[in-house]
Amino acid sequence: MLRVAVLGAGRIGRIHAANAALNRDATLIAVADPFGDGAQNLAAEWGCDASQDPITTLRRSDIDAVVIGTPTDTHVSLTLEAVRNGKAVLCEKPIDLDIAKVDEAVAEVERMNGRVMVAFNRRFDPSAQAMRKSMDAGEIGDLRQVIISSRDPSPPPRSYLEHSGGIFRDMTIHDFDMARWLLGEEPVQVTATASRLIDPSLAEIDDFDTVMVNLRTASGRQCHINCCRATSYGYDQRMEVFGADGMLLNENLRASTLRRWSSSYTEAREPLLDFFLERYADAYRTEFEHFRAAVANNAPMPVTMRDGRQALRLADAALESALSGRVVAV
Amino acid sequence: MLRVAVLGAGRIGRIHAANAALNRDATLIAVADPFGDGAQNLAAEWGCDASQDPITTLRRSDIDAVVIGTPTDTHVSLTLEAVRNGKAVLCEKPIDLDIAKVDEAVAEVERMNGRVMVAFNRRFDPSAQAMRKSMDAGEIGDLRQVIISSRDPSPPPRSYLEHSGGIFRDMTIHDFDMARWLLGEEPVQVTATASRLIDPSLAEIDDFDTVMVNLRTASGRQCHINCCRATSYGYDQRMEVFGADGMLLNENLRASTLRRWSSSYTEAREPLLDFFLERYADAYRTEFEHFRAAVANNAPMPVTMRDGRQALRLADAALESALSGRVVAV
Amino acid sequence: MLRVAVLGAGRIGRIHAANAALNRDATLIAVADPFGDGAQNLAAEWGCDASQDPITTLRRSDIDAVVIGTPTDTHVSLTLEAVRNGKAVLCEKPIDLDIAKVDEAVAEVERMNGRVMVAFNRRFDPSAQAMRKSMDAGEIGDLRQVIISSRDPSPPPRSYLEHSGGIFRDMTIHDFDMARWLLGEEPVQVTATASRLIDPSLAEIDDFDTVMVNLRTASGRQCHINCCRATSYGYDQRMEVFGADGMLLNENLRASTLRRWSSSYTEAREPLLDFFLERYADAYRTEFEHFRAAVANNAPMPVTMRDGRQALRLADAALESALSGRVVAV
Amino acid sequence: MLRVAVLGAGRIGRIHAANAALNRDATLIAVADPFGDGAQNLAAEWGCDASQDPITTLRRSDIDAVVIGTPTDTHVSLTLEAVRNGKAVLCEKPIDLDIAKVDEAVAEVERMNGRVMVAFNRRFDPSAQAMRKSMDAGEIGDLRQVIISSRDPSPPPRSYLEHSGGIFRDMTIHDFDMARWLLGEEPVQVTATASRLIDPSLAEIDDFDTVMVNLRTASGRQCHINCCRATSYGYDQRMEVFGADGMLLNENLRASTLRRWSSSYTEAREPLLDFFLERYADAYRTEFEHFRAAVANNAPMPVTMRDGRQALRLADAALESALSGRVVAV
Repeated sequence: MLRVAVLGAGRIGRIHAANAALNRDATLIAVADPFGDGAQNLAAEWGCDASQDPITTLRRSDIDAVVIGTPTDTHVSLTLEAVRNGKAVLCEKPIDLDIAKVDEAVAEVERMNGRVMVAFNRRFDPSAQAMRKSMDAGEIGDLRQVIISSRDPSPPPRSYLEHSGGIFRDMTIHDFDMARWLLGEEPVQVTATASRLIDPSLAEIDDFDTVMVNLRTASGRQCHINCCRATSYGYDQRMEVFGADGMLLNENLRASTLRRWSSSYTEAREPLLDFFLERYADAYRTEFEHFRAAVANNAPMPVTMRDGRQALRLADAALESALSGRVVAV
Repeated sequence: MLRVAVLGAGRIGRIHAANAALNRDATLIAVADPFGDGAQNLAAEWGCDASQDPITTLRRSDIDAVVIGTPTDTHVSLTLEAVRNGKAVLCEKPIDLDIAKVDEAVAEVERMNGRVMVAFNRRFDPSAQAMRKSMDAGEIGDLRQVIISSRDPSPPPRSYLEHSGGIFRDMTIHDFDMARWLLGEEPVQVTATASRLIDPSLAEIDDFDTVMVNLRTASGRQCHINCCRATSYGYDQRMEVFGADGMLLNENLRASTLRRWSSSYTEAREPLLDFFLERYADAYRTEFEHFRAAVANNAPMPVTMRDGRQALRLADAALESALSGRVVAV
Repeated sequence: MLRVAVLGAGRIGRIHAANAALNRDATLIAVADPFGDGAQNLAAEWGCDASQDPITTLRRSDIDAVVIGTPTDTHVSLTLEAVRNGKAVLCEKPIDLDIAKVDEAVAEVERMNGRVMVAFNRRFDPSAQAMRKSMDAGEIGDLRQVIISSRDPSPPPRSYLEHSGGIFRDMTIHDFDMARWLLGEEPVQVTATASRLIDPSLAEIDDFDTVMVNLRTASGRQCHINCCRATSYGYDQRMEVFGADGMLLNENLRASTLRRWSSSYTEAREPLLDFFLERYADAYRTEFEHFRAAVANNAPMPVTMRDGRQALRLADAALESALSGRVVAV
Repeated sequence: MLRVAVLGAGRIGRIHAANAALNRDATLIAVADPFGDGAQNLAAEWGCDASQDPITTLRRSDIDAVVIGTPTDTHVSLTLEAVRNGKAVLCEKPIDLDIAKVDEAVAEVERMNGRVMVAFNRRFDPSAQAMRKSMDAGEIGDLRQVIISSRDPSPPPRSYLEHSGGIFRDMTIHDFDMARWLLGEEPVQVTATASRLIDPSLAEIDDFDTVMVNLRTASGRQCHINCCRATSYGYDQRMEVFGADGMLLNENLRASTLRRWSSSYTEAREPLLDFFLERYADAYRTEFEHFRAAVANNAPMPVTMRDGRQALRLADAALESALSGRVVAV
């Protein structure tokens, strides 16, 4: 039975708390959040301890593992402190917005033989898992091209964007991780173009809302990613892998299978699930279970800090490419 | 080169005339229609002879084959006269609305070794052909159930309905033929229910607009047919065959592959092709080619007068079942 | 907080136990099963009491509600005893195989103002709920036809079939309930045909494996149901409602959204979820929540004993029709 | 009645000859091809004149229009000669592989007020037309991203590739034209990556088999194109346009609507139509009709030489980008 503390009681912390509480082989011991009564409320919901002090909480001797869902700029210090105290860590992405700081953290954790998993939830989506499994079984033969479409339903508030690190590090980072996972090789070349087609005033904070990225590996495999911050029909998440012997395609998920026929259309389905908490509910649950199992079995973490580092590196390269108008080698 | 006369210059006659004219191994020699200037106009379109006298036309010595697209009550006499004159015949469905008259005609044609094909166009639809071919290849194993959905976009005018023989003989007859063709066995039992859900005044002419029919063969195979005279989303034509090893399903055809995503729906396709002339354009073309080839090769007709007779028998039985509230043996 | 006992620790009892235990507003107090150590094991899993005596268990004063998942022939006596003890009841279908006994039970429960819900889980499937909601919103206008396809992956063992009441009462009963729920009117006419296409030896127990049923309401609405005990591609559950202004269609559910392209096919999806426990996991969860809420709010039960009675009546009529070859009025 | 000569009796010339011959408002007068008996055979098929001399043929006074389907290196000279003789021209793509030569030809034709249409057949595909029409009707609002997937079933022979101008000018050129047509703005920036994943020996002729291209317009609209020379499941042709209010997607075309269910897959469709002659049969027919109508009505050509020039410019830029690893401004 894994004894868990969740740091951060925002929307992502609440997801992790529920998954820890409902997991048959884990117990939610405590939640901590310095702001307001979030920790109190969340603890009441699941019948566990509450605290406004993450540091004290993660040091508790009756805790085996810590889930970090706090603001990005606290990820590294909390992760290091948890590792120092011998706890296993599931840390939300990105590890940090500064790659130098990430590199130091990775080195430090490795020095301590720390056990840290980075929370790239999408890898654990049942459809993503089915795709990876089919590829591993050789269904499409040698991989040639990967295409990832990833569009959010609506932009976050300006206050969020100001500290987000920009669209590549905040949003596309998930797709960079997915690209690496699907390509099966490290990208060595990044090209990106970025536009402000929704909100021109994003220029004030040097951010963009609509981007396209192409990646290329050393062997010549190619990957295209397109992202947009606003989508009229919901949260659009699609993936395609094309190889010598076939193609696999993951479509979007919906709340029901209903299709509609009327005088103006046929076979219409409902709009997509609104956003990631609904769309990836299963993925978050499975992610936690993989984390738990890796800790219990002392097995390698399914997503490592190096994975988190590489995704950030690609995000940095994409931003550099978009700003410079040049192809960037990584 | 098959030399062809088309009798009847209405919408169905025009289809057959075009297919004869454009067929690489056939020549359209003449069209005949006693009413108005239909024959004149159609002949002008294709550069062939026109006549207002079907009988004289079908007797022409420079004609090998006759396509009969005249009103139903002339089908038998024109067919017999054409056979007497040694012509091959492609006759529109139904052969006649009176089964006794049909039986006499079948006997007479067989006595003369006449060459007559009944125009059940749907068998020649590329998707129907693909389904039949898959079944013949054993893809679904032993057949268990057939489901046919067949809904017209809008009801014909009352004047047409009055001489149509009723929904079972006029509309469902196509589905009875399709049922026989897919079942691969003769139905021995017919049950039908019939309603007036669109136009209650159809009671005045003892007709219905919405029906369901179940058929059963001697070995226990089952078939369901549903029909309706009005459909908001277009001409709905679907077929399903279910067997021990699998299922095959034919969907509707549309003019384009376009799918639409908006704030109120996703994956929406356009309404269906409006009606049979558009939906079955390929089927009519292929039907003519099969007729031509059967004549040229002196091969068995792909759809016989007995097929036309059996479909009418099932229509009669369905009407009897709907009116009597009893299961009818055939 | 609803305090619940679950009677029966078989596969259906285990589903209900899990849903009661995981429901935020319910507590699983006890499970009871007279056979083997099923109750013990299930109780251990959820940390509740175990008993081999359903009667004693349902009488416990610390219990508000009883879920009955025992063999069919015990449903009536356990339901009545629970009602006598003032408990709310969620009883599995069918209430009983004998309509006279069901009628007595309905009368008795109504006399006592008992609170009993019959577990027709499919009504609570998210897609079924979305369909009903769209119909209620007037999306398809006046309803004309309902088509339900319902095929099991593989037949139950002979020992089960011998006490099942036959395919209509055991399997199609779900579809009869769905038909009533979708038609919005009581069927007044039932026609059925039944075959043994999988296992001819079912004749020994007067049962069938492949059936088609047509229903008709007083206003002329029509419903078709097809069922089969074995399906090569999984558990097939589809529904179609067709009305004056449109059509709604519920497709099958799958574990992932993956589609495959290869040299022999395109757009292929995986086989269907294997059977009802997986396919209707959400439905069972929601069903329990509706039961709980109805008890908590003293609201009408969402599915009543009369609903259970009517579905059985249709099953009886279908069997009568299949055996007699006659249309049966109900 | 447009009097037409077709130059070139290869597979593309045969398509144009058939469309001219079967068009109701055109007559096929002559076909010319200097090689073998291709012209003879094609002329025999359609009952028109044959010649081995394209120049003499295009000068015939009984000819109004010339369709040029000869090898690429003859396009410019034949086009200019036809224009000099007052003929309207439908010229296959690309106009030439050398942009300087194309620029001269465009200038020369404009100086003569020549009437030349470049044969970008895909614009006339019914689904492409439906997409453009929906965009023009404002259905998706302001356009943001275009995604084009374009994969050939199998590579052409090495002898063809050696004179093809390379994958960007030979194959992707269609997609560059489609991109411009859908973007509604000129691309100003081109980035491409190109690999040899099928046939490494293409390095010998400086060609590639698998490419990805990103385009960007001045206003920031983005377009992604992916191409591959071999595809196990057939000729893959998809397009997606994403805008502020919605998305439109064109799927592939198949010969039938059949879907298959078995123990190993569900909803499987057949492989795609094999290649462009089948896939774009309707498009070629409609293309010719648009050409004919533009000539008849003295209307602007639906695809101009400048369109042909711009597509080639984008192909050149893509090649430059792929070779240099730089973003190329156009």
